[in-house]
Amino acid sequence: MHVYRYEENPVVAPKDVTPHRSDFEVIGAFNAGVAKFKDEIIMVLRIAERPISVDPNIVKAPIYNPTRNELEIFDFRLDDTDYDFSDPRVIRKKGDASGFTYLTSLSYLRIARSQDGHHFEIDDKPFVYPSNELETFGVEDPRVTQIGDTYYVYFSAVSPVGVGESLVSTKDFKSHEHHGMIFAPENKDVLIFPEKVNGKYYAIHRPVPKSIGRPEMWIAESTNLKHWGNHKFLLGLRQDEWDNARMGGGAVPIKTDKGWLELYHGASHDHRYCMGAVLLDLNDPTKVIARSNHPILEPEADYEVEGFFGNVVFSCGAIVEGDVVKMYYGVADTSMACAELSLSEILESLIYI
Amino acid sequence: MHVYRYEENPVVAPKDVTPHRSDFEVIGAFNAGVAKFKDEIIMVLRIAERPISVDPNIVKAPIYNPTRNELEIFDFRLDDTDYDFSDPRVIRKKGDASGFTYLTSLSYLRIARSQDGHHFEIDDKPFVYPSNELETFGVEDPRVTQIGDTYYVYFSAVSPVGVGESLVSTKDFKSHEHHGMIFAPENKDVLIFPEKVNGKYYAIHRPVPKSIGRPEMWIAESTNLKHWGNHKFLLGLRQDEWDNARMGGGAVPIKTDKGWLELYHGASHDHRYCMGAVLLDLNDPTKVIARSNHPILEPEADYEVEGFFGNVVFSCGAIVEGDVVKMYYGVADTSMACAELSLSEILESLIYI
Repeated sequence: MHVYRYEENPVVAPKDVTPHRSDFEVIGAFNAGVAKFKDEIIMVLRIAERPISVDPNIVKAPIYNPTRNELEIFDFRLDDTDYDFSDPRVIRKKGDASGFTYLTSLSYLRIARSQDGHHFEIDDKPFVYPSNELETFGVEDPRVTQIGDTYYVYFSAVSPVGVGESLVSTKDFKSHEHHGMIFAPENKDVLIFPEKVNGKYYAIHRPVPKSIGRPEMWIAESTNLKHWGNHKFLLGLRQDEWDNARMGGGAVPIKTDKGWLELYHGASHDHRYCMGAVLLDLNDPTKVIARSNHPILEPEADYEVEGFFGNVVFSCGAIVEGDVVKMYYGVADTSMACAELSLSEILESLIYI
Repeated sequence: MHVYRYEENPVVAPKDVTPHRSDFEVIGAFNAGVAKFKDEIIMVLRIAERPISVDPNIVKAPIYNPTRNELEIFDFRLDDTDYDFSDPRVIRKKGDASGFTYLTSLSYLRIARSQDGHHFEIDDKPFVYPSNELETFGVEDPRVTQIGDTYYVYFSAVSPVGVGESLVSTKDFKSHEHHGMIFAPENKDVLIFPEKVNGKYYAIHRPVPKSIGRPEMWIAESTNLKHWGNHKFLLGLRQDEWDNARMGGGAVPIKTDKGWLELYHGASHDHRYCMGAVLLDLNDPTKVIARSNHPILEPEADYEVEGFFGNVVFSCGAIVEGDVVKMYYGVADTSMACAELSLSEILESLIYI
């Protein structure tokens, strides 16, 4: 696979972003959804910020309070034996069966704009900020689907009661309307198709069940984009392959002559995230036609291998122009990069089932 | 709380049910949804059957094969060290992070009919039997909502890819139409309201998230009963109470002057299941008005305390006639019982929030 990584990579990094509060620092500008808007390429960035801690013995957890409509910041002493601080991303109460109890950073969505797709200017203010009780720990990993002149932006909504997927829409990337949570916990990595297929909207999604089942790709249908049903299992993990631990949709599905092309992420048990591709039937996207045996992109560049959470390439969106797929992708849970791939080469690399 | 348990309890027990295959035995006839149909009370029973094993060293796992449209039965030797057989309900592959790998029984839905609500006749054949790849381990815990002359029957669909909630509809309790999975894994204990509220259908549901969040009650809306969205958190567990470990909706919500009354189940950490009550706003059922501090029904009778999985009362439906709530409920994951309670007494027992 020929991959042309931009010389400017990372195209956006935390240092390029002004924190939204003076007592915070930006630790991530990554996993952006992308869209074409007028003559610009828009990135809807996930910005992760954490409260600056002047005392090295204190870890802070920012939590949005929907009643007071403001952030609260809780302090935890590193020597507090009730909590586990071994993962810098989270604070876990000992004995808590959950994966985490608090997050050490707050993520929200912010717009970056570019004329050439290489150089971006970042808006001063947040675009989507936590606004309800299902978003108290932040909003993460946005994707953008354009349908007509409306852009649907959807993202993981994180709170103590679970991680689900919520939806807003915008026509101008300034204001937005909130449509609530469209996929109940635990779910993320939703990708809404850019047009109806046989009269129905479709979305790929990624449940994370507890009792039985694994983090794999499902597909659902809708008539109005807000209510979803007829959930079907779509694509599963492969033992002994690069996508053997967890997987989920990446970019908005790309319509081609051969079928709907979905660029998805897969991770191995040692948490190495790569991008792969799967082809779905043009008239029935619940049917898998073909799949890549090998990743189309692997973490290799230094900005992909090293960072807050290294060895991660994670695309939430791509721009297709002719045969060129401009795949934007988060690197190392830190920054944004872009690589160009050939659409026909991706399609030819797939193994038909 | 005054509780009148029927003298006939259990009103249906496994011994009353002929297995659907001569090589199977019925081990459960429980957790039935109920409805009034013409002049009858209908129970949609969950029937659990297991393949008869003549060799005490062999445990069998029945699995529906959707391609061949038939059951397959897998044999496991009790001395196979790759598997854990300590829970008689499941077979767990050692090292499998899931709660289970196979089930030792197959559940499906079967109709019982009664003129008086005390004495039931059970249909000869299954009503809803596993029929697709999301039901290969069986269908469980049905509820029934009547809207007009259509009865919506929905249930947990269990398979290796997860446990979700699927929907069928019937007008005659003989044939049914399948509408697919309406709540993606992991989800169960769905309760569809019997009428629209302010132009929308509502359903209580019970996600089981993995990373963060607990088995608690949520609520969603729909315009067509098949597609659901605007998921909101509804009601949570209470520390140090009888409902501190897991909870979920029970009976179809009952419309009263005071609000929508939901009879729900709660379980403690030692797996004792009781029934409680919660009152939701009549015009906005996403709002909780009041809740019972104490259970309205606890496992006390011998058929509730002892059985396949003892200390369980678990209602999936009730018939309301005037002030009388005829609450049908599964006992000990084995049989069906019924108890009559006073609607006004339940309402008066609630603590307003």
